Amino acid sequence: MSLVIVGSVALDTIETPHGKVEDALGGSAVYASLAASYFGPTYIVGVVGKDYPARGVELLEAHKVNLDGLETKPGKTFRWSGAYRQWSQADTLSTDLNVFADFSPQLPPSCRSCRSLLLANIHPQLQLQVLNQIESYKWAACDTMNYWISLCPELLSEVIRKVDIVFINEDEIRQYTGLDSIFAAGRHLLEMGVKAVVIKRGEYGSVTIFPDDLFFAPAYPVERIQDPTGAGDSFAGGFMSYLATQDELNKYVIRKAVRFGTVLAAKNVSAFSVDGLVNLEFSELQQKVHQLRNWA
Amino acid sequence: MSLVIVGSVALDTIETPHGKVEDALGGSAVYASLAASYFGPTYIVGVVGKDYPARGVELLEAHKVNLDGLETKPGKTFRWSGAYRQWSQADTLSTDLNVFADFSPQLPPSCRSCRSLLLANIHPQLQLQVLNQIESYKWAACDTMNYWISLCPELLSEVIRKVDIVFINEDEIRQYTGLDSIFAAGRHLLEMGVKAVVIKRGEYGSVTIFPDDLFFAPAYPVERIQDPTGAGDSFAGGFMSYLATQDELNKYVIRKAVRFGTVLAAKNVSAFSVDGLVNLEFSELQQKVHQLRNWA
Repeated sequence: MSLVIVGSVALDTIETPHGKVEDALGGSAVYASLAASYFGPTYIVGVVGKDYPARGVELLEAHKVNLDGLETKPGKTFRWSGAYRQWSQADTLSTDLNVFADFSPQLPPSCRSCRSLLLANIHPQLQLQVLNQIESYKWAACDTMNYWISLCPELLSEVIRKVDIVFINEDEIRQYTGLDSIFAAGRHLLEMGVKAVVIKRGEYGSVTIFPDDLFFAPAYPVERIQDPTGAGDSFAGGFMSYLATQDELNKYVIRKAVRFGTVLAAKNVSAFSVDGLVNLEFSELQQKVHQLRNWA
Repeated sequence: MSLVIVGSVALDTIETPHGKVEDALGGSAVYASLAASYFGPTYIVGVVGKDYPARGVELLEAHKVNLDGLETKPGKTFRWSGAYRQWSQADTLSTDLNVFADFSPQLPPSCRSCRSLLLANIHPQLQLQVLNQIESYKWAACDTMNYWISLCPELLSEVIRKVDIVFINEDEIRQYTGLDSIFAAGRHLLEMGVKAVVIKRGEYGSVTIFPDDLFFAPAYPVERIQDPTGAGDSFAGGFMSYLATQDELNKYVIRKAVRFGTVLAAKNVSAFSVDGLVNLEFSELQQKVHQLRNWA
């Protein structure tokens, strides 16, 4: 039932039309882990500096996220600063990799076998390094971003050929495949061996492409988006953690995983930093998944 | 069972990344009428010049569209020329109103009572003029565009208060209501008395807002869009004509109407001008509606 999540752990300074936060909890692995924590055992693998605030550790512990794989290194925690002029894309103001610059994931024994593995958005080389250390898993998924697609497409292809599920947004899959049609692009990834390609479309939801099926899911309506940071990470964390509770990777399971991911992404963007993912009632998530199904 | 459609009848010169056509059949009423023709009796109300080609009249006749309300006036037919750099928005290169400049719809007796009325995208003053001539109808709908929202929002409000269904795109409903959230904007129109607001989102499909419900429909996937002109008109024509075959305006009927509109819009954009709407098999439309339901 367990999910291992490898990704970044960061302190974010974020400005949106609705406010600003400084050194707030962030990073792909943190967003994904909090979202995942509602379904079952979650293991975070990442690195922080000596300055990582106690509130970060305490929050993950309160959500029962296993921290065996969270290393603390001398130096400062990865910091990212961004501003949103439009909701679909942050302008990066600064990136200070700090301890993340030399991140070389070494999985502790407790993380080496798992039901489900999520390679959140980090360098494809590190994603491969994690795949090589994992001794057994049922399903693996990766996320990525435009930066890696430009920098090292061959390494990314190596990752994609090894995973079951790819999370990617519309622009990224067009960039990676060179194809205009996201449907043709999705089929290209299926031909590489992926079982399902989840193409994220921001406020328009997602389309998931299977070998013989499509699944369109709208975004869960959010009246007032506060901060879109981490939407894709919380989607992927919820999706993979729900999947870890299931025995089969069939289309009904994937549809429900998409809906849970969608609802968690909506909770996430309705508050700054990780605040929207904290202390949720599982019954609320279930009820929103049900609504989402009825609205389509 | 009948549907009356009032709108423009045009000759279009269109350039897209996939080709160019000159003086091709177009206009909101023509796109909508061809789409509508698959469901039942359709009456077109509009005006053409002496130069309107016989092939236009023949095509509408072949689709059994009633032409009692299609006036021919001395002068030239309305001409529009546009180019698409991005699929979501045409750049207008020229507009020659010609006989359309003095269009003053006078409905012939055969058009004065109908099951369903579609006020396609024309001046709200003309939409009101038509509403005042119609003696009885079960459901009326209007479409509009950014130009009328800027020019005469009060007249448009008068139309909206008189119709049951509004077709409008995301940018337009934000512009008309001044609200960022399309859901809040939709509710604003419901408060004006509309029964359902169909918000069009281009390649992302549509969301329909009812007093107590939402319905998200994806666009039907099109691998290679040739010409998006008329997508909204064929959507509205198919939607309203399906509705004309039904006794009740409930949420199941509206969902099916949305799906038929969606499929017809997809057929439309897969070819230049009205070519994608010609000689379709009704069984193909039904099969695609079924697929669309299964994909969500």
